[in-house]
Amino acid sequence: MDFKSEFKRKIEDFEKIIDRYIPSEEEYPNIIFKAMRYSVFAGGKRIRPILLMSACELFGGDLKKAEPFASAIEMIHTYSLIHDDLPAMDNDDYRRGRLTSHKVFGEDIAILTGDALLHHSMETMANACLEFRGVESIKAMQIISNSSGVYGMLSGQVVDIVSEGKEIDGKTLEYIHRNKTSALISASLKAGASIGGASDKDIEIMGEIGEKIGIAFQIQDDILDVTSTTEILGKPVGSDEKNNKVTYVSMYGLEKSKRDVERLSNEAISMLEVFGEKSEFLLELTKYLIKRSN
Amino acid sequence: MDFKSEFKRKIEDFEKIIDRYIPSEEEYPNIIFKAMRYSVFAGGKRIRPILLMSACELFGGDLKKAEPFASAIEMIHTYSLIHDDLPAMDNDDYRRGRLTSHKVFGEDIAILTGDALLHHSMETMANACLEFRGVESIKAMQIISNSSGVYGMLSGQVVDIVSEGKEIDGKTLEYIHRNKTSALISASLKAGASIGGASDKDIEIMGEIGEKIGIAFQIQDDILDVTSTTEILGKPVGSDEKNNKVTYVSMYGLEKSKRDVERLSNEAISMLEVFGEKSEFLLELTKYLIKRSN
Repeated sequence: MDFKSEFKRKIEDFEKIIDRYIPSEEEYPNIIFKAMRYSVFAGGKRIRPILLMSACELFGGDLKKAEPFASAIEMIHTYSLIHDDLPAMDNDDYRRGRLTSHKVFGEDIAILTGDALLHHSMETMANACLEFRGVESIKAMQIISNSSGVYGMLSGQVVDIVSEGKEIDGKTLEYIHRNKTSALISASLKAGASIGGASDKDIEIMGEIGEKIGIAFQIQDDILDVTSTTEILGKPVGSDEKNNKVTYVSMYGLEKSKRDVERLSNEAISMLEVFGEKSEFLLELTKYLIKRSN
Repeated sequence: MDFKSEFKRKIEDFEKIIDRYIPSEEEYPNIIFKAMRYSVFAGGKRIRPILLMSACELFGGDLKKAEPFASAIEMIHTYSLIHDDLPAMDNDDYRRGRLTSHKVFGEDIAILTGDALLHHSMETMANACLEFRGVESIKAMQIISNSSGVYGMLSGQVVDIVSEGKEIDGKTLEYIHRNKTSALISASLKAGASIGGASDKDIEIMGEIGEKIGIAFQIQDDILDVTSTTEILGKPVGSDEKNNKVTYVSMYGLEKSKRDVERLSNEAISMLEVFGEKSEFLLELTKYLIKRSN
């Protein structure tokens, strides 16, 4: 498999998919659709929707049924970035090399744009559940809602925000990583598996794989903040140190961080290999996510 | 029927219901559950959930199935108030006689608390859809998602925010009222009817009744901002004028505003009367909402 071109194709395919789920800028009130599109089409690697669709494929599911959920999970991810970047939160001016939403549209519209994307993810999934009816879709919606809300991503961000500038212990750092980053990545694989018709046991296994990938992904993020350059990352390096943020690297050092990324990704890869040849793309994607330089 | 004591009982019942759907302050991270509860249990009239449950009852539905959706719609209403009050939006220090969320918890936590309530409404509905399975629940979730998002409440708030301090026409004002206030009130009746097993035609009729009630309710709000006192309202009167907000009263005058509230509520009442005795509580509630002084 030529992974790079396959990945590129999947990214391009997904851009066309999510384009159909977000109203056109021609619709009234234009400003909100313009702002939603500004952030959704800011280039991103589309990791969560591609994981979701790949997991659906792994279990032989109908990709058409996965599309609204893949779009919804990317809307949730995008909303979380817009709100994280706000002046009252991380106060970041740039994201992926472009001005952040509040720098372009103002703080009020940026808050509402985040809200709009979260609302629209809910609406997109509810529409899909009504269209497809099957319990697999409802389960996918439940997984995505649960992992992004107060038992997942949202509370990870809460703890991250209240921990800034404070001494935190390893348990708290793990809580932040597990919830803020890993929960939604794990949910992508679980939701995709559900739509693909996987058994409850296989859905759980995909969830565990996703947790390992998610945590390794976050540690790699912390590593890159120290070792990469602003040009490659598309955002300022060293921002964690600047913001007095405790990271995996500042807590455990660069060497242990690199070893743990290696270990977690090897564990995820072993678990994926059980599914045989069909999991080749997911395997390659896992390797890529860990070895990535941006 | 002793409407006042019946209404009071329904409010008290609902407080117990929604209490079960929001995690305890003992749970980690405490701050977010504390902040969610601070705003949810700030006293409100619980109009939307009571409309939803009354509509479910009207069609002979199982109230147990309505409870999670009633709770979800109140979470959405509460989140919208928290975000509306933010410094970047209306910058209000008081709501229902108490300090607003950002004054108590800070702007970052207030933004996240609004987000948390929206997430949690989605999760509560998704859990209910998975538990009850029936298409009535999925339809209720779809109605609530649709009316609160970019085709409803959210876009009403967007147009309201971008219109502040500007000359707007009657069409724009109607758009704001129809979406910002009326959409969620109308959705309460529609969703409740759906859960109650109403036909698609009856769901639509309930939606029309809700639109009339919702717009009359908003005009009454504009009237009270001019005619009431801060003590009775629990928030400063005259705030619309202070914020240069065009309201129904400033556009059409107090007399026409009062006449229109009367006309819309009479229309809603006539439509409700078709359902006979069973609609008595909804009838009385409609009358109350229009004649209320706070």
